[in-house]
Amino acid sequence: TQNYRITLLPGDGIGPEIMAVAVDVLKVVGKQFDLKFQFQEALIGGAAIDATGEPLPSATLDTCRNSDAVLLAAIGGYKWDSLPSNLRPEAGLLGLRAGLGLFANLRPAKILPQLIDASTLKREIVEGVDIMVVRELTGGIYFGKPKGIFATETGEKRGVNTMVYTESEIERIGRVAFEAAQKRGGKLCSVDKANVLEVSQLWRDRITQLSKEYPDIELSHLYVDNAAMQLVRSPKQFDTIVTGNLFGDILSDAAAMLTGSIGMLPSASLGASGPGVFEPVHGSAPDIAGLDKANPLAQVLSAAMMLRYGLDQPKAADHIEQAVLQVLEQGDRTGDIISPGKNLLGCRAMGDALILA
Amino acid sequence: TQNYRITLLPGDGIGPEIMAVAVDVLKVVGKQFDLKFQFQEALIGGAAIDATGEPLPSATLDTCRNSDAVLLAAIGGYKWDSLPSNLRPEAGLLGLRAGLGLFANLRPAKILPQLIDASTLKREIVEGVDIMVVRELTGGIYFGKPKGIFATETGEKRGVNTMVYTESEIERIGRVAFEAAQKRGGKLCSVDKANVLEVSQLWRDRITQLSKEYPDIELSHLYVDNAAMQLVRSPKQFDTIVTGNLFGDILSDAAAMLTGSIGMLPSASLGASGPGVFEPVHGSAPDIAGLDKANPLAQVLSAAMMLRYGLDQPKAADHIEQAVLQVLEQGDRTGDIISPGKNLLGCRAMGDALILA
Ligand SMILES: CC(C)[C@H](C(=O)O)[C@@H](O)C(=O)O
Ligand SMILES: CC(C)[C@H](C(=O)O)[C@@H](O)C(=O)O
Repeated sequence: TQNYRITLLPGDGIGPEIMAVAVDVLKVVGKQFDLKFQFQEALIGGAAIDATGEPLPSATLDTCRNSDAVLLAAIGGYKWDSLPSNLRPEAGLLGLRAGLGLFANLRPAKILPQLIDASTLKREIVEGVDIMVVRELTGGIYFGKPKGIFATETGEKRGVNTMVYTESEIERIGRVAFEAAQKRGGKLCSVDKANVLEVSQLWRDRITQLSKEYPDIELSHLYVDNAAMQLVRSPKQFDTIVTGNLFGDILSDAAAMLTGSIGMLPSASLGASGPGVFEPVHGSAPDIAGLDKANPLAQVLSAAMMLRYGLDQPKAADHIEQAVLQVLEQGDRTGDIISPGKNLLGCRAMGDALILA
Repeated sequence: TQNYRITLLPGDGIGPEIMAVAVDVLKVVGKQFDLKFQFQEALIGGAAIDATGEPLPSATLDTCRNSDAVLLAAIGGYKWDSLPSNLRPEAGLLGLRAGLGLFANLRPAKILPQLIDASTLKREIVEGVDIMVVRELTGGIYFGKPKGIFATETGEKRGVNTMVYTESEIERIGRVAFEAAQKRGGKLCSVDKANVLEVSQLWRDRITQLSKEYPDIELSHLYVDNAAMQLVRSPKQFDTIVTGNLFGDILSDAAAMLTGSIGMLPSASLGASGPGVFEPVHGSAPDIAGLDKANPLAQVLSAAMMLRYGLDQPKAADHIEQAVLQVLEQGDRTGDIISPGKNLLGCRAMGDALILA
């Protein structure tokens, strides 16, 4: 028996409901694959603010550090939107990424044949789309200094943030991306704004140099504005994309929305060592929280990513992913992905269907 | 008779071909509306680099400053891609924007019924889409300092750019956007990343304050990642969008691509006073340069925007826009927008069709 300590961060909104489903699924899969999970729950985001005044209590970070992987649901909600930024739920998420050194964010955007009609794009444009966005997660303008709001000489305010990358930061995310491309279609597109930004010129140079170590990978470069266009124009051209923190935030969401069902998309955030964090791409959906309407599948697929990338249990991961495909195949749908002739299930019932699948 | 001095900047690639068509159209429309255009051509981009070594010779900036409006085609090409960034074609464009103080960039993305099938999105999603992106153009990370590539203490390189906005910069682009929204559907969506960036928090605060002066406008705010998603999910929700330089670069291109025909989209760049610059959204398309294959309609519609926003001649602008709709209606198409059963025309023939329309 393999033993794993898993920290659960249910967070806010629909977080607890979808987390409960993922935990049930993990328990069942654990039995089948002889894996033992020791779950410990901790506070983050709005829930942590309400309980402790802080979006990321140090106890939470300690618990995460002492675990083999972290499964996160979602954070945030209107309730905390007017707090100062360092006390908002998002600060908890950024603190977690920095605190665990999670520099590599993997965001797959894959069209599932059963849900292809959910896309706002034409079937022939999105059929077969399978993109992995590798986003740098602990650098760039999210963390660069100076940052803040300062008074100018004339007395007006001036807002400042700094986009910074060092060569070593670019190299380490580049390696993750080249290696991801090796396991996928062998194509990597690096996205930057090198025609305007010096930080992007360094990015492009470093990625280009690195590509010599990966002669099997076909490397291309796109400016971020063009990449946003190309995702809409012809998303099938992409295999693996590597980019910085801010561009990755924007492009991974655009890529996710091509599928039409962001309630289905998981993500993984990984560091050089230590536990990774696995979480859905979607948010905390406060408007449907507690109503048993949420789609738990992105959370369940995040648990699968945890098994694959965090715990090196690809067979258990495959098993969960197969179960998800099977419930879709048999017509089970939550409200966000319902279409005529399918079975509308609540969050919990979808979990039950998965366990039987 | 009204006299106007117009600087023409044909630039690179297909620039000269499409510019020639726009000039012909302006001449004809000038006769009809009793407007006299004095055209003076100047160098920019790669063409300027080849002739003078600089992407924006000071003579060009002087000519522009001494004119009533500037009509630009497109700049750039593979040929100049390996030059240092301050000597590349793009530097000419950025220098022109800064030199003329063109802080407001208006980028319409409107679905034309005749071309709706060119969109990669489903008809019901894009039918009626009519978005105006108001992008700040002389501030933000494009111009903020410090910027450059520096050596760190450990000897590795560090790339740096700075996203900066002052209250007055935000206010002046905000006013342009609120006023644009007043002339349109009365809805303004401000896009930022205020959950992470301080510069965005200042942006959001200032736009929110400003909205008190425009009680007739319905203001909303979106984070840039969500805005990128929403453009794909349901673009009809947008009327006018206001955002900073970098986010505007990305989102206006994504919005443009929703139409499926960026060969049709014009833009205007305006300052507080002095001449504006009017140019297509598309690039210089070096692969089809000189082949009489380019679509001149975005250039012609840029001339219409020049008449409307730069020279206050809305009737002449309407006339050109009607002519464009009419050639589309009669089935004339260049290669980029051709579909079965339509008439394939070259660049010049499309110009002739417009003049007869
Ligand atoms: C909530 C926010 C801070 C976060 C980000 O910008 O990284 C989110 O958009 C994401 O992509 O995970
Ligand atoms: C060519 C480039 C410098 C420019 C920009 O980034 O502003 C272009 O993408 C645009 O949008 O006009």
